[in-house]
Amino acid sequence: MNLHTQQMSSGFFKVRSQEFKTLVNNNSLAEKVLKGDVRSTAKLIRKIDDGDREVFSDLAQLYGHAGRAYIIGFTGSPGVGKSTLVDRIITRFRDDGKTVGVLAIDPTSPFSGGAILGDRIRMQRHFLDEGVFIRSLATRGKFGGLTRSTADAIVTLDAMGKDIIIVETVGVGQDEVDIVNSAHTTILVTVPGMGDDIQAIKAGLMEIGDLFVVNKADREGSSKTVREILFMLQMNDERKRLEGWDPPVVECVATQKIGVDKVYSAILDHKRYLGDRGKGRLEKIERSRVLTQFMDLFKEGLLERALTKIGGQEALDKVVQDIMSRRNDPYRASSEFLDAVINGGSGSR
Amino acid sequence: MNLHTQQMSSGFFKVRSQEFKTLVNNNSLAEKVLKGDVRSTAKLIRKIDDGDREVFSDLAQLYGHAGRAYIIGFTGSPGVGKSTLVDRIITRFRDDGKTVGVLAIDPTSPFSGGAILGDRIRMQRHFLDEGVFIRSLATRGKFGGLTRSTADAIVTLDAMGKDIIIVETVGVGQDEVDIVNSAHTTILVTVPGMGDDIQAIKAGLMEIGDLFVVNKADREGSSKTVREILFMLQMNDERKRLEGWDPPVVECVATQKIGVDKVYSAILDHKRYLGDRGKGRLEKIERSRVLTQFMDLFKEGLLERALTKIGGQEALDKVVQDIMSRRNDPYRASSEFLDAVINGGSGSR
Repeated sequence: MNLHTQQMSSGFFKVRSQEFKTLVNNNSLAEKVLKGDVRSTAKLIRKIDDGDREVFSDLAQLYGHAGRAYIIGFTGSPGVGKSTLVDRIITRFRDDGKTVGVLAIDPTSPFSGGAILGDRIRMQRHFLDEGVFIRSLATRGKFGGLTRSTADAIVTLDAMGKDIIIVETVGVGQDEVDIVNSAHTTILVTVPGMGDDIQAIKAGLMEIGDLFVVNKADREGSSKTVREILFMLQMNDERKRLEGWDPPVVECVATQKIGVDKVYSAILDHKRYLGDRGKGRLEKIERSRVLTQFMDLFKEGLLERALTKIGGQEALDKVVQDIMSRRNDPYRASSEFLDAVINGGSGSR
Repeated sequence: MNLHTQQMSSGFFKVRSQEFKTLVNNNSLAEKVLKGDVRSTAKLIRKIDDGDREVFSDLAQLYGHAGRAYIIGFTGSPGVGKSTLVDRIITRFRDDGKTVGVLAIDPTSPFSGGAILGDRIRMQRHFLDEGVFIRSLATRGKFGGLTRSTADAIVTLDAMGKDIIIVETVGVGQDEVDIVNSAHTTILVTVPGMGDDIQAIKAGLMEIGDLFVVNKADREGSSKTVREILFMLQMNDERKRLEGWDPPVVECVATQKIGVDKVYSAILDHKRYLGDRGKGRLEKIERSRVLTQFMDLFKEGLLERALTKIGGQEALDKVVQDIMSRRNDPYRASSEFLDAVINGGSGSR
């Protein structure tokens, strides 16, 4: 968090010059992406992942051309075989002539943002396929964070012309939940006998699943896990959010290509549902994604400008010193700073 | 995230009246907490967990009396036996005549914020002990969020006079990492053979661990796991953050009380280190916690005031509609809103 803040305060001095550069010589990147240029797309996504604010003008340009792609979110604990399943699903979409963009979200390290290489390797064979574009996002503790950079990368792949965008996360934190929750179809992947604790953790995710996959279903206890999920779905009031859609629970063994077709057709069923009876649900998803993306940008810009206005890192260091020496407290100090930045707040804050 | 935002915008209308009430009749709660009154402390923490802004004046009052407690963070995946270990450690501190406050962080459900009851039950026998105060925090997607409410609860237990404050999280998201990272001693609990994926996920946590515990060490592969952790610690550059402290890796079987004393004395070793050679490290921890808490309050207040200034939920709904219909894009729209809220930002944003 202090790392985060330091990057913030150093961040917004950097921004100025970057955005200036943007206006001068960076206008062509978005155009190249719109032409489907792979190298430019990779470059833009790398900049997004680096938290480079230079990309905003490009993204604004791309946004008008986005909105066509169908977004599918895969989430589940590490080791459930998400990437193998995604690999199979990519193949099925390719067989149907669809182009696919894949964003593998790596919350591996909140500090160094490393990548889980093993997972990526499982999808590697698709790197040779021009119709598939796979990238990892590791943004963490950086300016903007994971939700923002994922949203930006989705806009990019969408505008680039990919028919299907698959977002894969390990669904552990609020960020990951927000990310998969903004997909059109959210798929929760689990394996037999993950134990009560995992199930308890999953409870939060149950609420956002449109489709549940029990992978490695050749393991003992698979049908028990299916029953557990069905039971939790019945218990879960939040299901009411998903009007008129009863989330199927599909067993498969992705490594042996068993049940993958069932998963694939369940995805297509949900896609059809959203285009028909689920139009209201679709509207909610789109609205939620737009609101999330806007709020992320708004919050980020707010903090950037507020920190500039109060005097940047120096002012922060001073207030922290005052609080540490108990000359002030975080509650009063934040209220004082807020008064200095935005008037018209409630006086007592 | 849209839930979140809605709570925001409804939140800040609520706040006004609440804070008014505060000034009128709520001044005594903090005083009762300072007298060590359990019921008032429970009430204040419940309000904190409910995201009730009424508590700010109480917390400001308490803050001046806080800063004495020693904070220990326990984190690890579900099912590693954290709570059982914490239970044993509580007993050891009580045997040494220390009072203990425990905050069990439950990120179970980002939507409903439910609690993992099983874990709590393991610590239940201490509920009879006046010297131990145990509460769960489940704040999620609520105004302020988990990091803020945990910091507030720590201030409360500290001011109440607890010698030791134990914070237990499942360490999955950035929030949980921030929380344990603000502890004086951060303990990572794992079990033998969690598999490569889990280790990969842990990589981010390796960087913040002051002490590593391999619980259920009677299981096969315990010494292998110890070697893996030692190896990852060697590989990890971030270790440099922890000047002059070589994180020990301790095996134990908490359920059978085997190795608990080793864990306990390792905690005391680290406590001694921070009071001596690790003074610089201690300073950093305190600074980080203060900065985190201040920034959380500042960001939260910023958003609250900014949303009021732009016209609350109505304005948000309109901009979302404009973006959905591609009349605007999130990048331009956020920049326009920012200009309306805070002047003097970089023009191009």
